[in-house]
Amino acid sequence: MADKNVTLADTVAALAQQKKYAALRDILVTMNPADIAAMFDELEEHTLPLLFRLLPKDIAADTFIEMDADSQELLIRGFSDSELKEVVDELYVDDTVDLVEEMPANVVNRILKQADAETRKLINDILKYPEDSAGSIMTTEFVDLRPAMSVSDAIKHIRRAGVDSETINTCYVVDDGRHLVGIASIRSIILAEEDAKLSDIMEENVISVDTMTDQEDVAAMFTKYNFTALPVVDGEKRLVGIVTVDDAMEVLESEATEDIELMGGTTPIDRPYLKTSAWRLWLARIPWLLVLMIGATFTGIILKRYEDILSSPALLTLVIFIPMLMDTGGNSGSQSSVTVLRGLSLEDITSSDFFSVVWKEIRVAVLCGVSLAVVAFGKVMLVDHLLMHNNEVTTSVALAICVTMVLVVVVAKLIGCILPMLADKLKLDPAVLSAPAITTIVDALSLLIYFTVAMKMLAL
Amino acid sequence: MADKNVTLADTVAALAQQKKYAALRDILVTMNPADIAAMFDELEEHTLPLLFRLLPKDIAADTFIEMDADSQELLIRGFSDSELKEVVDELYVDDTVDLVEEMPANVVNRILKQADAETRKLINDILKYPEDSAGSIMTTEFVDLRPAMSVSDAIKHIRRAGVDSETINTCYVVDDGRHLVGIASIRSIILAEEDAKLSDIMEENVISVDTMTDQEDVAAMFTKYNFTALPVVDGEKRLVGIVTVDDAMEVLESEATEDIELMGGTTPIDRPYLKTSAWRLWLARIPWLLVLMIGATFTGIILKRYEDILSSPALLTLVIFIPMLMDTGGNSGSQSSVTVLRGLSLEDITSSDFFSVVWKEIRVAVLCGVSLAVVAFGKVMLVDHLLMHNNEVTTSVALAICVTMVLVVVVAKLIGCILPMLADKLKLDPAVLSAPAITTIVDALSLLIYFTVAMKMLAL
Repeated sequence: MADKNVTLADTVAALAQQKKYAALRDILVTMNPADIAAMFDELEEHTLPLLFRLLPKDIAADTFIEMDADSQELLIRGFSDSELKEVVDELYVDDTVDLVEEMPANVVNRILKQADAETRKLINDILKYPEDSAGSIMTTEFVDLRPAMSVSDAIKHIRRAGVDSETINTCYVVDDGRHLVGIASIRSIILAEEDAKLSDIMEENVISVDTMTDQEDVAAMFTKYNFTALPVVDGEKRLVGIVTVDDAMEVLESEATEDIELMGGTTPIDRPYLKTSAWRLWLARIPWLLVLMIGATFTGIILKRYEDILSSPALLTLVIFIPMLMDTGGNSGSQSSVTVLRGLSLEDITSSDFFSVVWKEIRVAVLCGVSLAVVAFGKVMLVDHLLMHNNEVTTSVALAICVTMVLVVVVAKLIGCILPMLADKLKLDPAVLSAPAITTIVDALSLLIYFTVAMKMLAL
Repeated sequence: MADKNVTLADTVAALAQQKKYAALRDILVTMNPADIAAMFDELEEHTLPLLFRLLPKDIAADTFIEMDADSQELLIRGFSDSELKEVVDELYVDDTVDLVEEMPANVVNRILKQADAETRKLINDILKYPEDSAGSIMTTEFVDLRPAMSVSDAIKHIRRAGVDSETINTCYVVDDGRHLVGIASIRSIILAEEDAKLSDIMEENVISVDTMTDQEDVAAMFTKYNFTALPVVDGEKRLVGIVTVDDAMEVLESEATEDIELMGGTTPIDRPYLKTSAWRLWLARIPWLLVLMIGATFTGIILKRYEDILSSPALLTLVIFIPMLMDTGGNSGSQSSVTVLRGLSLEDITSSDFFSVVWKEIRVAVLCGVSLAVVAFGKVMLVDHLLMHNNEVTTSVALAICVTMVLVVVVAKLIGCILPMLADKLKLDPAVLSAPAITTIVDALSLLIYFTVAMKMLAL
């Protein structure tokens, strides 16, 4: 898909250079704004404003909002005040808010100056809601109807008000105090008799969210209930806005990205990889690496403590199996933590399931530990003892490795499931206690278990 | 939310035991089908069929489709043929297909027997599409209009056909050969003049997918274009179905779960954690653990090769820093792989970006490696040399550790970004080459680098 855009961008740039504006316009109007935006993002700085001005007004605003922040800023800086006003007027309020949040202060001032007084007030209201709340992602442009309206009145109202609304697929029925009393889908309105009252056809069991609800919970409600829009109410249950499914999908995707990045031990960056500088990536990654490196000091201290034992040649051979045991521990732990983390995100698991999760992980850990121990015993005796003629690898050493294996897997899986659930209980982000952090703890414990078991079983 | 359901389930179960069916029905009709389903899934086997029969017909089908497969099977086995027919008649075709895919063969036979001939044909058609294709997730119930229709005719048609369609928010305009020629949103129809022709108001630049398009690509198009439905056409560009946004969100969520599980080194299971048996979890996890454990044999072989060096007491101290170097390598590698994997999923990165990604990772790796080396030098000299009085940790040892650190981080980040991109190029699932697999490779290389550097720098 990107390949196609690149080629198209080349063609378009060539046409622009040859000043074939009529041909350019003909190409652009057949394209979807999202595709135009992707292509425009690839253009050179001086071509972009020129081509943008070729777009018809309605496509221009849709394209503008799909472009990346750098291109948007470039365009705004080149716009005259009236050009800026034309674009801002076409945008939905929630999109304007997104734009304002991305732009530097002096650009924001210009945008706000071009918005009309009412829009400016709406923007400022939305900006007051905390980041990641339902209020911050909602739009205030929706169709509101009254319970006493007939279906034909409602349709007349929709025809009047619909042009400025982000969606008319669901309409909201409010009383005189603007309290949400029902919803009516456009489908139920179209399919109803013309003289039916809205109060008869509306759905009264309305599911709504509060302005302060976390956007992750909002997105989860969309997947749970298959909504295409969700009303947002204030503390007094007055309807203040709606969240549409496209915004919910964006939240879903960016929350998944955030979880994945945290699990991989890097601070989430809300920017495409190729647009992120090496310095920015370094900044996102280095704190985790530093903490985890320093954390590995404990493993070092444990090894130092057992240095005397290892200096005996017969036992130095124990070192050979440290990576295998530590890695298996780390991998077992991250399996559990990743599964539990995803379960927590999807609300398949809640903190009240603590004991069922722990009990399940113990059973899985014993199954995994025993299977691994059996294979490890065979591998150690066959590869290390027989094939590699390592005579220091005795049956006792192999058995010590097996016992360690079972214990390490059980401990790792317990830590892997308990830590995320504990973090969730303490209202911390469980993904922050990510796989690598768990690995570091499990590493240290694996070594302790290994040496303790070896000392007992090899009678040191 | 789950807490609330559990309590509600208790109340409902108690009311059921006291045979207070009127009160029960009153409670149930105020609830959303998704919430009823979540509660029903918690009920005991003998209460469930009883309560399900209390639901009004329209809520019953919506609730049924939201329940988990075990509860659905239980209900179907208890249904009379006419009860089953009532539910099946209310379901949309794509939901029936989902159901058929989940149920055992004898239950499927009963379901198909109750569906009318036309539905049965539709179900069989959809079942023929490969799993994870657009065809397999589409619905065949949509509103199709003709270009010559006037807006008022179109509205009449929608009122007739809309009842059975999954959505009327977008209507599809087809010619006599059923080729898709345009789309008209219900919004554009409602807002248009009554005597306007559909061919005048419809959008002709229609974005559609083929029946064989991968469902992941379909979901990506929803996020890119902010659609609420997407038409599906066959090889001859005839409209055969539509994918609705709720199905796209489900795909998005399950694909993210799949990626996360693969990154965590476990085979994806398409079931909630608490409903998955310990055996099933064992089966999903043990192959990865076995492969990775056997993979660690290489690390063991490398250690064995350098055993002679380690047997000198002055150099045994090198062992202390193995975990720190191996962990840092593993963590650096998984940071890169996770970032690149997510970029590939979101199509921020494509295989044509290979060299820009590698170049960026090299720069980030050098930045990270040098910062870590500086801190490691300080830590080794301060903690190991000064505080722990380990005289074998000389400045030369500390320097060898620093040089190793930079090299290990660069190698780890290169492997972490190259492997997923290579897999993507070879059309394999890049997430399968997950963080733990990369860790195993990086472990072995880290050790090789460490001993090579130490031998050179300590003049062994």
